[in-house]
Amino acid sequence: MHPYRTHTCAQLSSANVGATVRLSGWIHRKRDHGGVLFIDLRDHYGLTQIVADSDSPALPVLESLRVESVVTIEGEVKARVAETVNASLATGAIEVFARSVTVQSAAEELPMPIADEQPYPEDIRLKYRFLDLRRETLHKNIMTRVAVISDMRTRMAAVGFNEFSTPILTASSPEGARDFLVPSRIHTGKFYALPQAPQQYKQLLMVAGFDRYFQIAPCFRDEDPRADRLPGEFYQLDLEMSFVTQEEVWEVMEPVIQGTFAAFAGDKQVTPAGEFPRIPYDEAMLKYGSDKPDLRNPLIISDVSSHFTSSGFGLFEKIVGGGGVVRVIPAPGTHEKSRKFFDEMNDWARREGYAGLGYVTRKGGEFGGPIAKNHGPERMAELYAELGLGENDGLFFAAGKAADAAKLAGAARIRVGEQLGLIDEDSFALAWIVDFPFYEYNEDEKKVDFSHNPFSMPQGGMEALEGQDPLTIKAFQYDLVCNGYEIASGSIRNHKPETMVKAFEIVGLSKADVEERFGGMYRAFQYGAPPHGGMAAGVDRIVMLLCGAKNLREITLFPMNQRAEDLLMGAPSSPEPRSLRELSLRVVEPPKKDGS
Amino acid sequence: MHPYRTHTCAQLSSANVGATVRLSGWIHRKRDHGGVLFIDLRDHYGLTQIVADSDSPALPVLESLRVESVVTIEGEVKARVAETVNASLATGAIEVFARSVTVQSAAEELPMPIADEQPYPEDIRLKYRFLDLRRETLHKNIMTRVAVISDMRTRMAAVGFNEFSTPILTASSPEGARDFLVPSRIHTGKFYALPQAPQQYKQLLMVAGFDRYFQIAPCFRDEDPRADRLPGEFYQLDLEMSFVTQEEVWEVMEPVIQGTFAAFAGDKQVTPAGEFPRIPYDEAMLKYGSDKPDLRNPLIISDVSSHFTSSGFGLFEKIVGGGGVVRVIPAPGTHEKSRKFFDEMNDWARREGYAGLGYVTRKGGEFGGPIAKNHGPERMAELYAELGLGENDGLFFAAGKAADAAKLAGAARIRVGEQLGLIDEDSFALAWIVDFPFYEYNEDEKKVDFSHNPFSMPQGGMEALEGQDPLTIKAFQYDLVCNGYEIASGSIRNHKPETMVKAFEIVGLSKADVEERFGGMYRAFQYGAPPHGGMAAGVDRIVMLLCGAKNLREITLFPMNQRAEDLLMGAPSSPEPRSLRELSLRVVEPPKKDGS
Repeated sequence: MHPYRTHTCAQLSSANVGATVRLSGWIHRKRDHGGVLFIDLRDHYGLTQIVADSDSPALPVLESLRVESVVTIEGEVKARVAETVNASLATGAIEVFARSVTVQSAAEELPMPIADEQPYPEDIRLKYRFLDLRRETLHKNIMTRVAVISDMRTRMAAVGFNEFSTPILTASSPEGARDFLVPSRIHTGKFYALPQAPQQYKQLLMVAGFDRYFQIAPCFRDEDPRADRLPGEFYQLDLEMSFVTQEEVWEVMEPVIQGTFAAFAGDKQVTPAGEFPRIPYDEAMLKYGSDKPDLRNPLIISDVSSHFTSSGFGLFEKIVGGGGVVRVIPAPGTHEKSRKFFDEMNDWARREGYAGLGYVTRKGGEFGGPIAKNHGPERMAELYAELGLGENDGLFFAAGKAADAAKLAGAARIRVGEQLGLIDEDSFALAWIVDFPFYEYNEDEKKVDFSHNPFSMPQGGMEALEGQDPLTIKAFQYDLVCNGYEIASGSIRNHKPETMVKAFEIVGLSKADVEERFGGMYRAFQYGAPPHGGMAAGVDRIVMLLCGAKNLREITLFPMNQRAEDLLMGAPSSPEPRSLRELSLRVVEPPKKDGS
Repeated sequence: MHPYRTHTCAQLSSANVGATVRLSGWIHRKRDHGGVLFIDLRDHYGLTQIVADSDSPALPVLESLRVESVVTIEGEVKARVAETVNASLATGAIEVFARSVTVQSAAEELPMPIADEQPYPEDIRLKYRFLDLRRETLHKNIMTRVAVISDMRTRMAAVGFNEFSTPILTASSPEGARDFLVPSRIHTGKFYALPQAPQQYKQLLMVAGFDRYFQIAPCFRDEDPRADRLPGEFYQLDLEMSFVTQEEVWEVMEPVIQGTFAAFAGDKQVTPAGEFPRIPYDEAMLKYGSDKPDLRNPLIISDVSSHFTSSGFGLFEKIVGGGGVVRVIPAPGTHEKSRKFFDEMNDWARREGYAGLGYVTRKGGEFGGPIAKNHGPERMAELYAELGLGENDGLFFAAGKAADAAKLAGAARIRVGEQLGLIDEDSFALAWIVDFPFYEYNEDEKKVDFSHNPFSMPQGGMEALEGQDPLTIKAFQYDLVCNGYEIASGSIRNHKPETMVKAFEIVGLSKADVEERFGGMYRAFQYGAPPHGGMAAGVDRIVMLLCGAKNLREITLFPMNQRAEDLLMGAPSSPEPRSLRELSLRVVEPPKKDGS
């Protein structure tokens, strides 16, 4: 007999009744029924009920042990009496009568409870992560994560991608965020950097002729703590393909992403592969007030500026006259809502820093509120007809400069949708946002900047760069969004050195700058580079959506806290003086704020 | 039609004759046959022959392009005439007559040749790695690497292991080598470390109840350049299991390792799963003079000390009398070998720093050489009979202290095997080396040290630690060897805090030291830890063996050079002064050698 177990704690059923078995696991729960002890023995796979009565030599030992102790039980499988069968448990039809017990590891008093998952302070949970990970929900989330990643790998391989590991100790790559630096011991004063993403390497792989690359890639950004990102490292499903158009990237990746979502979505609907909407950036900003719209929300924003070029509502007339816009968010079926509902939306907008959110109420065809009053019921009816709104639908108004109005309308759309319960919580709504602008105007520095990825191919290529207002140029660049989150981002790359130089020139960088910053890649493009493109999907975000978790720490094995500390292992820590000497480094006090 | 390709360069065959196709790839070779241009067009998948004659508008364009330029060819598939069919090429029955060509990327003059893989200086190959990777052998090796890793993942999953990613930014873990350190920007003067191995994390996963873990794990060691290891990072197939004995680890892993080897071994034999020899460390040191024996070599070392307690050959008598040993390495069928062969072996041993390698020659039963002469033919014949050696077999002698003699005998065994052509080059010979000593005597510091892994469980547990001479204690520790290389190493872990404290006490470390150095793990063992064990296999080494490569750089995508520099990306490099300020670090000159 195996010294530890003949079965896992999820394996025994009525078929094993009468068998002598050995089980090992943790004491999950203990219930003492006056001389008879019931134990839920837990392992990775499940629970089995152990019974020790006063005839069993195991009883005093088991009685003396704390929960979470590890034991090996030898005993006999017995059928439970009908009324104690637990149908919700795989092993619920049986129990094991303990004949003997071996204590593998007795637990001290626990710093946190396991069995019932009471909320517990985060710092204790992180310090004792090995206990936290025993809790049912977190354990399950981690296993979902493991399964999602494995599923992604299988699907990527099935469509012809090969997984390559790119270097982790590499050069600083200017991706926008701050690099983690690693001092070199051999080269005094020089540093490696951890990759923010394997962007250059994957492009080099295409130049090297490897056609279809993917990687579940660790990425590192030394950013200040942000609620929606863990400090330190995160994972991307990173991929790149040669000889492709952006449409081909989408066609190849929709079944992969959809497949993974569907495999873990349970009863939830997932947008079918081949049917992901492709929404141009400009349209997304207009209709959803966001480049990561939640399409589970049926509300659509409209631009109604033309209705207010002349209006009794002077504020809107003035805004439109001054080049601004008026956008509206429908609030369907709000005839029963009190004035308070509408006023509170306006208050919310002001709290968020906007001038305010105007509104029109409607009940049985009757308009209410100052905008309707001043604009007049006939023109309001005309507007409603055009928007396809009904007799009991309200309407919110976001007015101002186009970008501000879009942002407010987008936020209001989410809030209205939530408050009216319009969000379809039972679906994952996937869509591509496409045709992103290649450049944007940097108000702070009064210059043109890349809006996303400088490595993207501008639509229209060299011709566009030479002949078009840069701010009107679109890129072959796309995001994948799900339920209001950006879950992936990609582009067709600019593989032509002269186009690359021209594109950088427009943001004020010279050929020499390009060579210095992206030397490896720029050099590579001189020697035969294939047209190529790809994307990177956020594994952590996808797992979080699929687990229904609210926090990245709930789907991460050993996360750091928000101060970028690993409380379990005690990182970061002070190095040995010898280590610093070997690296030729000295720690200096940070400069005082007053410059002294 | 797809803008870049209707087929890959490996797809077209006689079945496509007459079709109009589009192919994209690199110009691998150009052959100008007087007005007719032949091009081998290459992509990741293969080669296709393109023909452009004077009627084709593609001709002048193709003529003007350098090799390695990327083009898209549109043309018609034609059958080759019988005498030009190339049976060694998948597409060798056809060629494509080019009607038009689109230049995707014209290549500059190349810094190194691709097509014929001439040897080329390593620094150029590394700087232009994207070109080097196009070369057939390296491209193929990398694809083998990719396939080996994917195959390992599949096999591990099939036997119930789940892949978990453990943190890369973590705490210093005292594994024996030097950590790479990563300064924390937020915590002035503190550093993260890159993991030398996920040892503690995988054990914590077992304590957290995840039963079977594996990971293709990146590991980092800041070591001085070594010929057999790349600077920086390397990969391990890392795994851990709960509630297992070492026998179970072996039983589970033999089919995995054997399966992967067999899948990529081609015609070579691989030791069948279930039949890996399990050789105790002491026996390996005796019979092979090494703890990583090459079992393709049939020679077995024997200890013949007892034959020389009294001998006419005074040197051996003296050595044995002084507590030393005499070991012999057979040299079968060497009757035709000249005296020079034997003398050169002796010279070699002296060059390696040993006192010398004695020998006995034998031809038709006649012994030769000074040992035989002094020891006498009768006693020699007796020795030969005992060793099972024949009338034409020579014998080499390694004498001295046991450890030295074992080392020399081991090296001589390899050399004799090679020189006599006894190594079976067509096999992968796998074996476990087991029962490693838990402790060893550190001559420099005159104290007892751990010989391998301090986390291993000593055989006999607490009882052995308390009652036995430490140097006689074995550990539940094992290596997997193949063809003279250690390809994996593992152990059953010590999961009992009190045994752990005792084990460290013997090497002079206190409980407080244990808590300080291995705090996370030591703490974890207080709260219910399962018996567990595992191993880690060197992915790079295994790939190297399977590719038959002689150098790790030949199986690595973007390796650093031996000075730990990435010549392609320019790492390490000098950071921006701002970055150092943010990290509160100053680079200081390394201390002068003379102390000034």
